[in-house]
Amino acid sequence: MEVCLPGTGGVIPLENRWLTCCWVEHQGKALLIDCGEGTQVALKKAGCKLSRLNTLLITHFHADHTAGLPGLLLTLGNSGKTTPLTIIGPMGLHLVVAALTVIAPVLPYPLYLLELEADKPGKLDADAMEIRCLPLKHGIPCFGYRVSVKRKPIFNPQKAKQLGVPVTLYHALHAGQTVTLPDGRMVKPEMVLDGERAPLSICYCTDTQPTDGLTEFARNADLLICEGMYGDESMRGKVKEKGHMLFSDSARIARDSGAKRLWLTHFSPALTAPEQYLDEARSIFPQTEVAYDGIRIKLGQKIK
Amino acid sequence: MEVCLPGTGGVIPLENRWLTCCWVEHQGKALLIDCGEGTQVALKKAGCKLSRLNTLLITHFHADHTAGLPGLLLTLGNSGKTTPLTIIGPMGLHLVVAALTVIAPVLPYPLYLLELEADKPGKLDADAMEIRCLPLKHGIPCFGYRVSVKRKPIFNPQKAKQLGVPVTLYHALHAGQTVTLPDGRMVKPEMVLDGERAPLSICYCTDTQPTDGLTEFARNADLLICEGMYGDESMRGKVKEKGHMLFSDSARIARDSGAKRLWLTHFSPALTAPEQYLDEARSIFPQTEVAYDGIRIKLGQKIK
Repeated sequence: MEVCLPGTGGVIPLENRWLTCCWVEHQGKALLIDCGEGTQVALKKAGCKLSRLNTLLITHFHADHTAGLPGLLLTLGNSGKTTPLTIIGPMGLHLVVAALTVIAPVLPYPLYLLELEADKPGKLDADAMEIRCLPLKHGIPCFGYRVSVKRKPIFNPQKAKQLGVPVTLYHALHAGQTVTLPDGRMVKPEMVLDGERAPLSICYCTDTQPTDGLTEFARNADLLICEGMYGDESMRGKVKEKGHMLFSDSARIARDSGAKRLWLTHFSPALTAPEQYLDEARSIFPQTEVAYDGIRIKLGQKIK
Repeated sequence: MEVCLPGTGGVIPLENRWLTCCWVEHQGKALLIDCGEGTQVALKKAGCKLSRLNTLLITHFHADHTAGLPGLLLTLGNSGKTTPLTIIGPMGLHLVVAALTVIAPVLPYPLYLLELEADKPGKLDADAMEIRCLPLKHGIPCFGYRVSVKRKPIFNPQKAKQLGVPVTLYHALHAGQTVTLPDGRMVKPEMVLDGERAPLSICYCTDTQPTDGLTEFARNADLLICEGMYGDESMRGKVKEKGHMLFSDSARIARDSGAKRLWLTHFSPALTAPEQYLDEARSIFPQTEVAYDGIRIKLGQKIK
């Protein structure tokens, strides 16, 4: 599972910072969360392969999360896409997509639109990824997303050795196939595997004020991507009014949820050097990073 | 009259080339022609002051000329605009603007929408600029625009000298004011001016195939900005199908119209080095330039 933030900005696209969005890729298929103005350029710059994109999740309908939609849809078409694109978002999605595609009326692939029930957490699947959503606390309906992928159980080479399995058959067994040894014996995967592992999970939560459900939603995530609209604690008075969070709010959620790491994103355009507030966030949750356009991580390395 | 192309690309915004648009500024007021995805960033990068923008002209409703609209409108609002913005474009404009602003539903300034009569040339005024439009030949209704500003008549310092006008009064006379000399004589502007001068004019014509009317529309323009979707003559077969032009087509229009200079813009994304086709265009019309993002010119220098 590979995760990338092609953009990390909030409100308006800047010359040196694209609007926040999140690319998640697994087994050659990808989903994108949010699509502000310029996202198609940011994706290209970050090396995200549009041909792999099957699912688009929209957090909410503010322009900095949606205005790139017609451009991206057209570019997908120009790139030869013919398979369906599923777009998932809050209620009203079909109206917003219909409106924005008035300048992209003909696409060479079908759109599947899926509206999330208002104010309710939900769960659905896209390719081999499980998607959960959580209503957030913003000025308009807004959802956080948790994307999870199953992991293969741990392969136990000692068990395989004791059974006399040749090394050349390890891969097939780990992939879940029953194999026949040269002497005719059959070995089933469960005979050499060490049981289930927790899925890999990332959480993407912007735009929002702190909400109780957020900590539980991000529970033990391998990566929590959370908004960092403001770094300066002096902005505390503004966050409620604007429906956003401080770095420290996100750090506390990461700490309390048991997330393994935190990436801050959706920086205010006025926040030209977000890293200056990093130390304070790290004093709350050490595994905090100030994300930057193109930041990328591969979660869940293979067991050797 | 100052003219700038913040972007020069066609079809899709690229990392190193914004979508084509044209900024025209005169006496502290500005108009913008076209607004593709990312135009607000391109404007900022090119140093165009959004606070001066009162008029937006749309050539046609393809996404590479319109998708930046909601973002620009919101950013104008965030920048403190309260005065009206007039948007002018083909019939259907009010529907397109209504649709695209579904993600920008509340603006702190009024929009005035003005739809151009289908298939007809037209003339209107915006601030101190005269705007003419010409139907072009593209897949959908599309207009070229000619923007003109009046110029002061030429000031004749010899006439002023003969009348004994002190140099300190030259500026007032040139600006059209009657002045009183120290000896009590009154001098009227027409006594020291050398008659009218032709207005300054720029033409912006994209997207289009060559059409007869185009040459007359661009007659004697100080600057013709014309599309250069393709440089390579081997693309000749494609231009009709796609509704575009080759560099050489635009150069011929510039030559035949008597335009003073030609800027090529709206390059195909595949055209990574448009300057390689410049020599050929210059062999037809020597005052051709391959435009680049941020290209800028001040037309009509003051007469000293």
